[in-house]
Amino acid sequence: MRSPIPDYLTQVLDTCGGDTSGAPADYIPELRDADPDRLGVSLCTVDGAVYDVGDTADEISIQSVSKPFAYALAVIDRGLEAVLQKIDVEPSGDAFNEISLDPATGRPRNPMINAGAIAAHALIDGDNLDARVERFREFAGRLAGRELTVDEAVFASEMSEAYRNRALANLLRSRGIVEGDPEDAVRGYIRQCSINVTAHDLSVMAATLAAGGVQPLTGEQVIPPRVNRQVLSVMTTCGMYDAAGDWVTSVGIPAKSGVSGVLIGALPGQVGLATFSPRLDAHGNSVRGVQIFERLSDDMGMHMMEAPQPARSVMRSRRDDADSAVFELQGSVQFPQAERMLRALVEQPITEPRAVFDLTRVFAVNDVGLRMLQEGRRRLEADGIEVIVDDPDGVYLGKADDA
Amino acid sequence: MRSPIPDYLTQVLDTCGGDTSGAPADYIPELRDADPDRLGVSLCTVDGAVYDVGDTADEISIQSVSKPFAYALAVIDRGLEAVLQKIDVEPSGDAFNEISLDPATGRPRNPMINAGAIAAHALIDGDNLDARVERFREFAGRLAGRELTVDEAVFASEMSEAYRNRALANLLRSRGIVEGDPEDAVRGYIRQCSINVTAHDLSVMAATLAAGGVQPLTGEQVIPPRVNRQVLSVMTTCGMYDAAGDWVTSVGIPAKSGVSGVLIGALPGQVGLATFSPRLDAHGNSVRGVQIFERLSDDMGMHMMEAPQPARSVMRSRRDDADSAVFELQGSVQFPQAERMLRALVEQPITEPRAVFDLTRVFAVNDVGLRMLQEGRRRLEADGIEVIVDDPDGVYLGKADDA
Amino acid sequence: MRSPIPDYLTQVLDTCGGDTSGAPADYIPELRDADPDRLGVSLCTVDGAVYDVGDTADEISIQSVSKPFAYALAVIDRGLEAVLQKIDVEPSGDAFNEISLDPATGRPRNPMINAGAIAAHALIDGDNLDARVERFREFAGRLAGRELTVDEAVFASEMSEAYRNRALANLLRSRGIVEGDPEDAVRGYIRQCSINVTAHDLSVMAATLAAGGVQPLTGEQVIPPRVNRQVLSVMTTCGMYDAAGDWVTSVGIPAKSGVSGVLIGALPGQVGLATFSPRLDAHGNSVRGVQIFERLSDDMGMHMMEAPQPARSVMRSRRDDADSAVFELQGSVQFPQAERMLRALVEQPITEPRAVFDLTRVFAVNDVGLRMLQEGRRRLEADGIEVIVDDPDGVYLGKADDA
Amino acid sequence: MRSPIPDYLTQVLDTCGGDTSGAPADYIPELRDADPDRLGVSLCTVDGAVYDVGDTADEISIQSVSKPFAYALAVIDRGLEAVLQKIDVEPSGDAFNEISLDPATGRPRNPMINAGAIAAHALIDGDNLDARVERFREFAGRLAGRELTVDEAVFASEMSEAYRNRALANLLRSRGIVEGDPEDAVRGYIRQCSINVTAHDLSVMAATLAAGGVQPLTGEQVIPPRVNRQVLSVMTTCGMYDAAGDWVTSVGIPAKSGVSGVLIGALPGQVGLATFSPRLDAHGNSVRGVQIFERLSDDMGMHMMEAPQPARSVMRSRRDDADSAVFELQGSVQFPQAERMLRALVEQPITEPRAVFDLTRVFAVNDVGLRMLQEGRRRLEADGIEVIVDDPDGVYLGKADDA
Repeated sequence: MRSPIPDYLTQVLDTCGGDTSGAPADYIPELRDADPDRLGVSLCTVDGAVYDVGDTADEISIQSVSKPFAYALAVIDRGLEAVLQKIDVEPSGDAFNEISLDPATGRPRNPMINAGAIAAHALIDGDNLDARVERFREFAGRLAGRELTVDEAVFASEMSEAYRNRALANLLRSRGIVEGDPEDAVRGYIRQCSINVTAHDLSVMAATLAAGGVQPLTGEQVIPPRVNRQVLSVMTTCGMYDAAGDWVTSVGIPAKSGVSGVLIGALPGQVGLATFSPRLDAHGNSVRGVQIFERLSDDMGMHMMEAPQPARSVMRSRRDDADSAVFELQGSVQFPQAERMLRALVEQPITEPRAVFDLTRVFAVNDVGLRMLQEGRRRLEADGIEVIVDDPDGVYLGKADDA
Repeated sequence: MRSPIPDYLTQVLDTCGGDTSGAPADYIPELRDADPDRLGVSLCTVDGAVYDVGDTADEISIQSVSKPFAYALAVIDRGLEAVLQKIDVEPSGDAFNEISLDPATGRPRNPMINAGAIAAHALIDGDNLDARVERFREFAGRLAGRELTVDEAVFASEMSEAYRNRALANLLRSRGIVEGDPEDAVRGYIRQCSINVTAHDLSVMAATLAAGGVQPLTGEQVIPPRVNRQVLSVMTTCGMYDAAGDWVTSVGIPAKSGVSGVLIGALPGQVGLATFSPRLDAHGNSVRGVQIFERLSDDMGMHMMEAPQPARSVMRSRRDDADSAVFELQGSVQFPQAERMLRALVEQPITEPRAVFDLTRVFAVNDVGLRMLQEGRRRLEADGIEVIVDDPDGVYLGKADDA
Repeated sequence: MRSPIPDYLTQVLDTCGGDTSGAPADYIPELRDADPDRLGVSLCTVDGAVYDVGDTADEISIQSVSKPFAYALAVIDRGLEAVLQKIDVEPSGDAFNEISLDPATGRPRNPMINAGAIAAHALIDGDNLDARVERFREFAGRLAGRELTVDEAVFASEMSEAYRNRALANLLRSRGIVEGDPEDAVRGYIRQCSINVTAHDLSVMAATLAAGGVQPLTGEQVIPPRVNRQVLSVMTTCGMYDAAGDWVTSVGIPAKSGVSGVLIGALPGQVGLATFSPRLDAHGNSVRGVQIFERLSDDMGMHMMEAPQPARSVMRSRRDDADSAVFELQGSVQFPQAERMLRALVEQPITEPRAVFDLTRVFAVNDVGLRMLQEGRRRLEADGIEVIVDDPDGVYLGKADDA
Repeated sequence: MRSPIPDYLTQVLDTCGGDTSGAPADYIPELRDADPDRLGVSLCTVDGAVYDVGDTADEISIQSVSKPFAYALAVIDRGLEAVLQKIDVEPSGDAFNEISLDPATGRPRNPMINAGAIAAHALIDGDNLDARVERFREFAGRLAGRELTVDEAVFASEMSEAYRNRALANLLRSRGIVEGDPEDAVRGYIRQCSINVTAHDLSVMAATLAAGGVQPLTGEQVIPPRVNRQVLSVMTTCGMYDAAGDWVTSVGIPAKSGVSGVLIGALPGQVGLATFSPRLDAHGNSVRGVQIFERLSDDMGMHMMEAPQPARSVMRSRRDDADSAVFELQGSVQFPQAERMLRALVEQPITEPRAVFDLTRVFAVNDVGLRMLQEGRRRLEADGIEVIVDDPDGVYLGKADDA
């Protein structure tokens, strides 16, 4: 049997592939002269299966798609509070390279616009420019699962036209947001943007965000959960230039695009996505990349507000034996499921001296679910009821495997 | 046993309850003179269990919390495209009652600010003012699960100070966003805002949004899924005045607040929340309401970017009999799970003439999951393999119960 | 002999008259259906000579050209400080009918945009709507030198489309800028704008501003000098929509335009100008009216920053007789001239016991000049010098005639 | 006799001198550590008399007061059209060092904000940085009437903190407004701002603007009249930060302030003013400097909208002899006076064969006045009347002296 998923992705590419509207970025020769017809899509599951269709092995500069990851690294290195002192998290209606510090706070509005991205880069640990760039390159490599390199030709071209970024870096320096030499911040930021990746790499990096910060191939928690949540939140409101609300309503996948034609999306708990198509629309987003995301969101229900169908009751059955009430539980236990089980215990009090909970069919319990189950056990025991848990897979004890 | 949930909520109220900062709205006597110390929180699960702690039975005017529901009704009545022609969905940095049509589009920036809310109200079906108000009142009643009434004293007071709303309605009329008499739009909108609700009601209304539009007490699909997703998306980016990004990152619950001190939140697939505390902060949000939401998000992991822990593999076991490959599946099947099962079939091809799928432990399959399973079956059969499904609960046939 | 001035104005009209670009205002039938080819220019000197060329006797509604005069009346009635508490005097980049209260002050940015003009109208003395309108109509009549009437058809049409003005009036009411019924403010303001005038009338009204508030035909000081200065200042920075700086640099005449195609200008001390041509440019200014002003400014040196050529020395001659120093003065004496005379007395001290000042050739002395001359006399007398003034025309005593 | 003018200025200083509110600029030690109590005022007439009171000989860096003069030089070197292609002339509500290119045009809003001033500096002729700076230094020296020098300590300090200006220069470079190396533009602009001047110097420079571009001490036409008018116009609407309209209405003198505490004003045809007092208000304007300007405007009628009193009739007398009509004219002849004389000839036609015009008492005729008189003569002669002009001072022939 052949997996239908590549077939599906191929069909999506076929549908969107004929659109040749838009134009590649033309401010540097490396982007201007590249083949504009290339088209690829990669989908990586949270347990690390990657589906590649089209030009997903072509190396291109990561450009602005580096921003969410550099922000993650800055928050890891400095802590969230320190970073929030320097960079806001509010959507900005401005175009991506505009001078847009918030007039009230004096801070960049968010880390997805260039001003905030330069500030985030400058917050990465490192004694000097090279150390910061190297630290980011290594971090991005851990996210992608392979060593990444800087494209020196792209870097040189970008530097020769970096007047806007220099304007931003000097502005940030004048406000005390960036410390040290603004030119170093520009160089470092541009090296960060000049790292080469493939669509395949990017889908894995996105899947790491989707998997709560756990790299799906290596199993490493590269981004701590709280940082990961912050990055996804910022991508949700600030990732797509100029039209945050439109993207959230119509696609609903936290995303980030880059001027080289790359676009990533991370749907929490589900998948990481990446597309590559160089022609850009007026907002600077890849024309066909946006179309592919719209298709996936529509066809596959990949929208963060698409409520999962209400799960079957966690309480599969209740059986009252001679001296025991036996509960068979099932599925995954988060707040809603734990609440439902506790509710059942309240509504139909146990009259037997013993309660048996069969967790054989439970396959996951999250932290809140676990605390609630434990509180229920404590209360039953306070009522004088003996509690026995049949937990062959160790779910209740937190031993559940994570796949 | 007593449920720990009310105890938990009581503890949250105790923690936040001492804060007497802020002040109630004072532009009408009904809000100015009301007891500012009242405090309540209600939590409603997607299957309709409601936990009420504190002053959750006090009737207060719904005010701006009516906005997402009126927007839902407008989209139901006119269709999404028609409503998007009149009202944008972009966040607005402006304070809630400012004159803020988008200079480029000429439309209200979103339906959560007054300009957009007046426009949304005017799009509700109805031959006249009274018909529109009555239609909304009935709709809100179906969401709350009981008949709601207009507070005539609040309505009269609001009307006597409605200069800003009249300004907005006339401005909208001048741009052709509102048709007919602008004064009718003002009256209708203010009657909509003057409907009395309790925090209990509001948590049920919010739980309807969390449950994909299905009212959890009645089981009625009051809001179609696509409309429901739209409303939640708009609440995400535009629900909390002035600081969309801050709310999304730190709380992460689609929400809406009202000047009477009410605040609702809807976490897809999990719960509806409502708080009531009249003292407002500088943004017009309830001081203690916001604190309670922050506590719940932090303590209970109620954040939309909090990726659920990766579920245990859907493939519980595989057993190769004499002439059958027997697969035992478990849990809920959405895209990620279906993908994983198909992957297993690809990676370890079935060499036997027959495949048996035991779905006894599967408790939910969504639409995309179902389509993927069916495609897998089709492909196995095309390979000449006989497929047998053991589906005692009818999950695979879409007969799974919805709780 | 025929005056060359009408010939010159005719020539200007001939040059600009062929331009048929732009379009008349089309929001009411009275403006939409009027003959767009009409063209007239009137020039009124500060002593009341009026030159009319073209369609200068056609009655048209005064529209926004009423604004500077209503502002003058509001300042007369309430005092400058009280009016500045309600209406700022800062230029606004916004289009004329936009909602543009200053976000910091909450006040209309200036009295030339509709928000400020409605506020100014509402500040005119009067117990009710009719009294205020009547007071303005009478005031405008004194400025024009004839009784003016409201065009009831224009008024009715404007009222039926007055949504934007209603928006503004309600907004102003909500901020406490306008008191009383906002609808009254709208009606009154629109009646004010519906008063019929001719280009001839408008040139006389403008000449009153140019003449320091003195109506040039009647000699009445209709606008007090300090108020007049305020109105001219505001016209300078705020009179022409959207491009204050461009108008000041290229034309340099305090001006105001109206949507009916009228345009006035007042060059202090020189002339009042009015043009009428219904086709408007994108800013809402009369296309040919603007061209005529540019021609007059260029050809006739009518630019407020065009420094008058330095006058010949005020000290025509000095003659030292046996016991007298005799000074023959000439021209007009303002600060620069008075300073020069005092300087001469300092540089070449009088050694004779007597000083004779022959003012026969002096024809005007302003207030500052008079005070300086008197101070000079006081100091000479303190030095023991007898001062004799030969002042046949009473110039030094302030008796100089004012024409 | 002692001139009362220094006494008057001393009295103004005494009145304003006690105000110690505000604070000197503190971003460089040279400004931060300077004596904040210094106070001086200089007044220079259009014929070159300078009155100095207080600390008018202290050298301080010219700072932003260099902006109008650098703009003048840019317009001289490139022509007005070319400069308008790079720099707008619209008022900007932004603070002086903000990033404020016009979003629509992409150009700096005006040459008085830093963005526009850097652009203007870069338009000065010169093959390189040093040549441009030297050209400006020489130009400023001609305006001041003495050689000026760069304060190297100020220059060095400014450069070490020039992040905002670097931001602006790079932004301008990215938009193509500035060509060449942005760092050169910054260095040159800052050297321009670091030139030392005294209040005495500044009053002479301002008087040059007041005198139509003619340096009052040397008589040199340093700035061509059309350029001079442009500079005064821009100072009128853009010279004082943040509150153009307020300054025009309440003071009414085209002005420019600098962060070192200097402030200049130029009242066309009357005087140049300069004050020096280091403490600045929140807008960056000298606190006491502004007060002195307000006093001078109020006391001395120095406001550009203060219409000069209508001059006495230019027609002093008409006498009809046997075969001649004899007209005795007086005063200065500009458009209004010439118009009046022509009008008299039209209203009371000459019936004699000869007309005699006695210009003995006429002391100035400007270009427009001369053209109108010549046209009148031509028309009388065309009517067959002999015209004789008694013009002992050569006024009619344009020989009038210029003082």
